[in-house]
Amino acid sequence: MRTIEWRDGVVTMVDQRKLPRQFEVIECRDYDAVAAAIKDMTIRGAPAIGAAAAFGLALAARASRAATRDELLRDLDTAERLLRATRPTAVNLAWALDRVMSKARALDLPASDLREQVTAEAQKIADEDVAMNRAIARHGAALINDGDTVLTHCNAGPLATVDVGTALGVIIEAHRQGKEIHVFVDETRPRLQGARLTAWELTQAGVPMTLIADNAAGYFMRAGKVQRVIVGADRVTANGDVANKIGTYKVAVVAHENGVPFYSAMPTSTIDLSLPNGDAIPIEERDAREVTHIDGVCIAPEGVRVSNPAFDVTPHKYIAALITDRGVVYPPFKDSLLRIMRAEA
Amino acid sequence: MRTIEWRDGVVTMVDQRKLPRQFEVIECRDYDAVAAAIKDMTIRGAPAIGAAAAFGLALAARASRAATRDELLRDLDTAERLLRATRPTAVNLAWALDRVMSKARALDLPASDLREQVTAEAQKIADEDVAMNRAIARHGAALINDGDTVLTHCNAGPLATVDVGTALGVIIEAHRQGKEIHVFVDETRPRLQGARLTAWELTQAGVPMTLIADNAAGYFMRAGKVQRVIVGADRVTANGDVANKIGTYKVAVVAHENGVPFYSAMPTSTIDLSLPNGDAIPIEERDAREVTHIDGVCIAPEGVRVSNPAFDVTPHKYIAALITDRGVVYPPFKDSLLRIMRAEA
Repeated sequence: MRTIEWRDGVVTMVDQRKLPRQFEVIECRDYDAVAAAIKDMTIRGAPAIGAAAAFGLALAARASRAATRDELLRDLDTAERLLRATRPTAVNLAWALDRVMSKARALDLPASDLREQVTAEAQKIADEDVAMNRAIARHGAALINDGDTVLTHCNAGPLATVDVGTALGVIIEAHRQGKEIHVFVDETRPRLQGARLTAWELTQAGVPMTLIADNAAGYFMRAGKVQRVIVGADRVTANGDVANKIGTYKVAVVAHENGVPFYSAMPTSTIDLSLPNGDAIPIEERDAREVTHIDGVCIAPEGVRVSNPAFDVTPHKYIAALITDRGVVYPPFKDSLLRIMRAEA
Repeated sequence: MRTIEWRDGVVTMVDQRKLPRQFEVIECRDYDAVAAAIKDMTIRGAPAIGAAAAFGLALAARASRAATRDELLRDLDTAERLLRATRPTAVNLAWALDRVMSKARALDLPASDLREQVTAEAQKIADEDVAMNRAIARHGAALINDGDTVLTHCNAGPLATVDVGTALGVIIEAHRQGKEIHVFVDETRPRLQGARLTAWELTQAGVPMTLIADNAAGYFMRAGKVQRVIVGADRVTANGDVANKIGTYKVAVVAHENGVPFYSAMPTSTIDLSLPNGDAIPIEERDAREVTHIDGVCIAPEGVRVSNPAFDVTPHKYIAALITDRGVVYPPFKDSLLRIMRAEA
């Protein structure tokens, strides 16, 4: 089943805050509910929140009482602003909103037909995400050798996308091809997406894995026990810099230092050629309680000052290759990214 | 007050598993209790467990019904073996046991007098630790500039020693000298000694600090917001390699990559010239539950495979200086360590 789906005018999504203890699907009946679900990370992962935002617009279109095309576009604008403000770092969210809004603005149709088209475009985004992830998995699996141990950080699995996953899609595909691989899963503090989601997904897929504290990743790389690092991405800039879950930068530097190839996998919807480099990417700062509390239990002195950046930027010089739905691209990324973004999908 | 003390034949220690929620002092009345406290990390920190092991021998001497010197030495041998087996990585534990046992073996005294001497030697180790840490603080504070932000990993504060601390002793001393400093505290998974102990100690000492997830350390270093990294040490080998809490290696590599000086502070009891380099240091593997459970709450799929190395080794090439009680030493460490270890304290 998919992480997020449109079912007869209702958006359903797996509640990722409850895994691995509980598998629960929630229903969003209006765009406010979708915005709240993105913000509180009921749904997370760059491609998944892109699809969620698009479905949010579909819900807004459906709920709108607009009689004319212009009235409907105004209602969509209102929803679009709320959805856009939920999370700043992953570009897929803005990309999906832009795509649906451009489509709507480009069509000179009566309101009722436009409603249908908005929903169809959101559905298309979701379907294309699955197709892109399948292509990523196919391209990326070729980089994994039989016998490799692969380290991953955070969750870039089926749950982070509409289905299949990016980094984890590659790993699971390599496993399905019969390659004997083992995965080190960084638990990924503060929200523990590695321990909660990646470990759960790999267990479901039957891929052999070992959960480790983020702090142990360097130990295993230095010991020669990691042959590849693969992570997802929240935004890739024109020069190949990658914004991804906080801690990715440390992993990439240490991988580089130990001669371990570091790959980032993403659909082309994650590539933002409008930004020259990673310094221009807005980094979301999240609530202190994500650090001080784990499942409601306080693990630090009360009232302690906390800084909780949710993402960091890995400069392209630490990245061996980017795995996209249009193929694997290598440095210099400025050229190779431009080439694939201009190419037909 | 001290982390560990000898009070009328009872060893008292702060229960570090309960902080910051509860400040509790427990009593150990026999050496088994001390061994258990070291093993379950009621007391932790290389210098602190060295003192604890020495006091364990004092309790064994006191409890022994030996009538002769030889019988007493045999009883001490039994206790010594149990205490030595508690934790393998920090050398201070073995160092303190060796020191007390050598002293006992060297003295040709009746059992009753030997008992006194064993206790006196253990007390001396504890007192010397405090004096050494004061010297470390003094030498190290000179390396901290007014306005510096210092990052530390794990806990190398008063609680990790008999008193004063090593890395945190340096930081607190710089603060006391009136330097305006700020500290980034790595929470230090899996046991969260940074969040639980370092954050608590710095708050007590009134040093401005910010708690961060370990994953965020690289983000702040790359942003130019960290001027120094200071950590403790569990063992330093002849070439200057440093074993310390898991994750230290990642911090050191990323600090090096960003031109941030990385210091490790330790009493000379942590320096082990018998090992040529860090590859020879035994690395303790601890229970999977430290990773999968936080305060009894399971944060991963049940039964997931885990690897939980408690320490890693930072090669000397990433270390700008070692701060010891006999002064700050610089590369090449092979020469400088030999020189200070030969010098009189």
